[in-house]
Amino acid sequence: MTNVAVLLSGSGFMDGAEINEAVLTLLHVTKQGASYQCFAPDIAQMHVVDHASGEATEESRNVLTESARIARGEVQPLSALNVDDFDALLLPGGFGVAKNFCDFAVKGADMTANADVVAIGKAFAAAGKPAGYICIAPVLTPHVYGAGVHGTLGTDADMAQAFEAMGGTHVNCNVDDIVVDEAHRLVTTPAYMLAENLVQAEQGISKLVEKVVNWSA
Amino acid sequence: MTNVAVLLSGSGFMDGAEINEAVLTLLHVTKQGASYQCFAPDIAQMHVVDHASGEATEESRNVLTESARIARGEVQPLSALNVDDFDALLLPGGFGVAKNFCDFAVKGADMTANADVVAIGKAFAAAGKPAGYICIAPVLTPHVYGAGVHGTLGTDADMAQAFEAMGGTHVNCNVDDIVVDEAHRLVTTPAYMLAENLVQAEQGISKLVEKVVNWSA
Repeated sequence: MTNVAVLLSGSGFMDGAEINEAVLTLLHVTKQGASYQCFAPDIAQMHVVDHASGEATEESRNVLTESARIARGEVQPLSALNVDDFDALLLPGGFGVAKNFCDFAVKGADMTANADVVAIGKAFAAAGKPAGYICIAPVLTPHVYGAGVHGTLGTDADMAQAFEAMGGTHVNCNVDDIVVDEAHRLVTTPAYMLAENLVQAEQGISKLVEKVVNWSA
Repeated sequence: MTNVAVLLSGSGFMDGAEINEAVLTLLHVTKQGASYQCFAPDIAQMHVVDHASGEATEESRNVLTESARIARGEVQPLSALNVDDFDALLLPGGFGVAKNFCDFAVKGADMTANADVVAIGKAFAAAGKPAGYICIAPVLTPHVYGAGVHGTLGTDADMAQAFEAMGGTHVNCNVDDIVVDEAHRLVTTPAYMLAENLVQAEQGISKLVEKVVNWSA
């Protein structure tokens, strides 16, 4: 059975993992007959956002602890992830990726990525194991795969420019589709970079998960 | 277009709404061609649970604010819910229902229900508008519909006994099925009372949502 590692960046799209994307990812991994284990770094969130008001609060929350809400408690620290135990890697999006896995939300193309997250991505790449990066998560891929990696952040010109400034080759992509980089065994999809509802998000995510699981089978 | 009110009780199954159930509910409302608006009471959670350790923390969180994480910010206070604007009511489960919408988690069949939540349920019932209660949420139905209401909490004997002690008629039900109370236009399904994975949870929830939307069309 294909076993997938899923990296979560918190719980809630304004400061953590995009909940809909994370649940749809886990749903479709299961639909594909694969198993999964969720992981998250045991670090503080960049900040906490009140999702009702959209304002940052004075609270402090931990990425691992909050990710456990999506994973129904079944989350392990990123430091426990042994690439040998998994066939593929999946990263749902949300501002948690752009705030807790790197600082793209603040610095754009001048971002610095979390070294542990990049190391895990590189370990899957080095092992020739496929990966799927969803929504904003592809901003990490130039740092993981290096210059020339093909990926999508949707259809926004500024996002495409930022991706290219980091060395990636941006491919415009609609919400119901995926971009496949065959050489790197990498799939990306815009999801909530473009999605207006859950059904739209599911269209791209289901294709991404199917491709990744089939690659690793 | 059928317009559904969805009541959320936080975000995270140990102290709030069960995230998978909530997302699957919203997904299938959209798949049925219906629209929705999420609501939550503007009250403090009973407590906050660290979902990684399973232990209660010293934190304090608000049900409305945390529910907004699932609803991508689009949540309104329960006090703003006008039954005239909606065709049906849906309640995903999670301990949030048993801790924030009532105290079933502490008192079992001797529970007291949140008066505002019960009032909303009764208003939909009085208007002859259908409702779907998922997972643990059916513990509210004897308080909303009165003695004789038919519903399910799955297949556990103790849960069935508690439901009957409150005046309900419990019907055992597997995870992939629903219990329909035609007289009350009420549907219930066990979801994570029994589900071992997301695909199982989706089986019952998709049937429940389809029934409720078709009833109200």
